[in-house]
Amino acid sequence: MTTIGLDVGGTKILGVVADGSGAVLAEHRSFTPFEDGEATVEAMAGVVRALRGDHDVSAVGAGVAGLVTRAGVVRFSPNLPGMVELPVGDLLSEAVGLPVTLDNDATCALRAEHRLGAAAGVDDVALVALGTGIGGAVVLDGEPRRGASGFAGEIGHQVVVAGGIPCVCGRRGCWEQYASGSALGRLAGGRGEDVTAAAANGDARALAHVEELAGWVALGLVNLVQTLDVARILISGGLIGAGDVLVDPIRAAYAVQAVSPAHRPPVEIVAAELGVRAGAIGAALLALPVP
Amino acid sequence: MTTIGLDVGGTKILGVVADGSGAVLAEHRSFTPFEDGEATVEAMAGVVRALRGDHDVSAVGAGVAGLVTRAGVVRFSPNLPGMVELPVGDLLSEAVGLPVTLDNDATCALRAEHRLGAAAGVDDVALVALGTGIGGAVVLDGEPRRGASGFAGEIGHQVVVAGGIPCVCGRRGCWEQYASGSALGRLAGGRGEDVTAAAANGDARALAHVEELAGWVALGLVNLVQTLDVARILISGGLIGAGDVLVDPIRAAYAVQAVSPAHRPPVEIVAAELGVRAGAIGAALLALPVP
Repeated sequence: MTTIGLDVGGTKILGVVADGSGAVLAEHRSFTPFEDGEATVEAMAGVVRALRGDHDVSAVGAGVAGLVTRAGVVRFSPNLPGMVELPVGDLLSEAVGLPVTLDNDATCALRAEHRLGAAAGVDDVALVALGTGIGGAVVLDGEPRRGASGFAGEIGHQVVVAGGIPCVCGRRGCWEQYASGSALGRLAGGRGEDVTAAAANGDARALAHVEELAGWVALGLVNLVQTLDVARILISGGLIGAGDVLVDPIRAAYAVQAVSPAHRPPVEIVAAELGVRAGAIGAALLALPVP
Repeated sequence: MTTIGLDVGGTKILGVVADGSGAVLAEHRSFTPFEDGEATVEAMAGVVRALRGDHDVSAVGAGVAGLVTRAGVVRFSPNLPGMVELPVGDLLSEAVGLPVTLDNDATCALRAEHRLGAAAGVDDVALVALGTGIGGAVVLDGEPRRGASGFAGEIGHQVVVAGGIPCVCGRRGCWEQYASGSALGRLAGGRGEDVTAAAANGDARALAHVEELAGWVALGLVNLVQTLDVARILISGGLIGAGDVLVDPIRAAYAVQAVSPAHRPPVEIVAAELGVRAGAIGAALLALPVP
């Protein structure tokens, strides 16, 4: 069984062809015409066409950065302003003549990590993607949990500083204003990835900024564990290229902030393993028939 | 099939005998000797003995206010300081000669509300108990989710004001420092229940305090919905005796704070229905064999 998985973000669409085990047979990238939702769907269809030529593809899965319903409608996406109440699943299916299943991009990434990567074998696990904002997804009792409408995992928009920094979502003091790649960039007056790169080279000022960020990341992770009691947390997103330079200070800050640690098994905080393809692989797995 | 359910809190143990449908056939209360864990277990055994005389009881369930493992060990309980790493399930089973199953008290209450009360028929729902602190539990995809160790739902200890009021748990700025019955009492200089009672009688100052509390409650509820996308939230706990005087301002504040409300079905915020017996009924249901 061969399927196509698409990861649709604000700047690019990454598509893969994968076999039933999630192994990638081919990939294709395209820029996202993000301001026009139907043009985005057409670009998604273009990626499908580019990939299916050499493969006998039976279905398409797509992970989209936004509020995606179980019926395949993108209701709202901060990074894809053209996608409002758009039946992306139906439109794409019509355009390519294949069944299409949609999900949130972070949930797709966690699905892939749970099957093949850093969450394999763990029944209760969260993925936290530190990028422009903070995305997330949770697996509880072995299954991705999407909530009533499919909108679970919007953990970047938990308020951690009531009345704090205004957020794009309309609230004030959201976690992603303090703990995302953008927040790190703001702390240091640059890009978040540049700060982690400088920290990796031993730059003292950059290391101090990463440590400050890690404290904020840990604060939200402890909140998440209090609510969901996950055994492992995967860190992914744009910042994770830094590896242990980022994860080690998060682990240290978590250990300081954890509640009643003497009475709980330690929570494992690890880097995601599948990298930038995780979302597309998870989308390809999503398109497989339920076993 | 008749079982006994116990709800073990910091001040009292409430026990019920229930039939397989959760209907209460008898009840019994006892004070909790909370400083000595084994004495608490003996008091639990006393309630079981008082109740089983007239009924053919096959098993016991117990909900305990604390971190309860799936194996029936109470690892830690802020309100029952004598219960530390205590195998309450095994000890009680030995004392009464019946199988015993343990769970968190809020999870038991939500189990009962989900089967018989305000959460019936809703697959994704949270219970939020506003009392001395804030307890909670979640049902996702139709089942209570307890997390890796059984500790999920400790939502009162999510930080919402980083660096804020010190909490009993060791963190600063936990939600329950701003949105619990104790917080309401602190706002008004009295007991939380007295403030809601005064508000019910139209006292303007009390109404203002309840409105301020409702804003804080809503903040944490929006956080919860961002993370879990539940369709309904049940309010329970000591404050809920006030009914709509409490729930209406929470609904109003939620509507103001909700994220992208135009693109989501509204979240229903309702009072729990089963009252003070919810935890004990849920514990009795927990003791039933898995169907």
